[in-house]
Amino acid sequence: MARPQTDIEAGRQELLDICEQLVRQRGGVDLSMTELAAAAGMSPANLYRFFENKEALMEAAAGRWFAPKIAIMEEVVAADLPSREKMFQFFVRRFVRMRDEFHEDPDMFKSYLELGNEHFEVVKGYVDLGDHYLSELVVQAMDEGYLPDLSIDDAVSLINQMVVTYCNPEALIYLDHKLSEEKLGMIIDAIFIGLGRKFDAKPSSGKPHIKIVT
Amino acid sequence: MARPQTDIEAGRQELLDICEQLVRQRGGVDLSMTELAAAAGMSPANLYRFFENKEALMEAAAGRWFAPKIAIMEEVVAADLPSREKMFQFFVRRFVRMRDEFHEDPDMFKSYLELGNEHFEVVKGYVDLGDHYLSELVVQAMDEGYLPDLSIDDAVSLINQMVVTYCNPEALIYLDHKLSEEKLGMIIDAIFIGLGRKFDAKPSSGKPHIKIVT
Repeated sequence: MARPQTDIEAGRQELLDICEQLVRQRGGVDLSMTELAAAAGMSPANLYRFFENKEALMEAAAGRWFAPKIAIMEEVVAADLPSREKMFQFFVRRFVRMRDEFHEDPDMFKSYLELGNEHFEVVKGYVDLGDHYLSELVVQAMDEGYLPDLSIDDAVSLINQMVVTYCNPEALIYLDHKLSEEKLGMIIDAIFIGLGRKFDAKPSSGKPHIKIVT
Repeated sequence: MARPQTDIEAGRQELLDICEQLVRQRGGVDLSMTELAAAAGMSPANLYRFFENKEALMEAAAGRWFAPKIAIMEEVVAADLPSREKMFQFFVRRFVRMRDEFHEDPDMFKSYLELGNEHFEVVKGYVDLGDHYLSELVVQAMDEGYLPDLSIDDAVSLINQMVVTYCNPEALIYLDHKLSEEKLGMIIDAIFIGLGRKFDAKPSSGKPHIKIVT
């Protein structure tokens, strides 16, 4: 008897659509279950049949926002590509998608950020999942001879720090015009060429390099 | 007759002290001239003798916050050091100072961030000054053979993106435990070893590197 479960699921999806419209109209701050119930033309008691509390609603809304990003990460991690290319795809595809969402509806994008800031514990799970996939890419990169002399955790942390403006949706609002796929590619290259290597290694430009010790 | 000017300047410094106490007590949001005048035990009309409007007050408060950071930048840029060491000092000394301020009084630090977000045009001047000094370091680095095939503007933009978590005071609030002088040093090394270089350059680890083309 899957029917009732399916009805609940369909109802949840419809309510998430309404929730999205509501966020679009009035922003994401302090959205209440009562408000959503009113917008859906149902009683609060009825709404609680679909989402047992606001956290469950927020989790479902975040799940919908993150689903395509998780799909990208899974696809890239499973791909048969060298680690540098995977690392680039891992970040650039999510960045481009996020930027599209931002350009399509900047206010909606900001409202979702507000929602995310208010319910960071929901976002946290997805951030951790991203770190998990990134650590798989780091292991492959290390197998291919990159990121020497680093622990996996340190490599994940350093890479996250170096590409943060391409991952943090907030950065799009302030830095959009300074962000590009090309620059992200150059950062990834610098990570693969230089991260974890001793600086006194001769730069590979062919130009003479005189190290001045003071 | 420098006397009146000096008195005005002394009065401004005293009022900035009071302003700082006020921010410490009640946060930085929507601080008004009336409130500051009351805290200083003077009439608003009198306060306007020292600061002609709130922007002038905010500019002076920001000036005080940024002064030691500007001193660091000027000292580092003028130093007789190789570019890699300068670049590291340029970022690490300001980072350590900012982190000390944060640890000493986290609430005060957050209040100043609020103030800065409310008056971003005041902050903008200092950000631009930082870019100006950074571009001097970039030119020196290029002279020494680093950052090949990049324009100065692109190099400045890329470096800012790669070290943003060590410059943006906001990052301290969320990432403090993940930030360290050592990691910043590794990022700077990766910039000097790898940024602007072609990825197909052989990594300098000495390990064999097999490039898998798919």
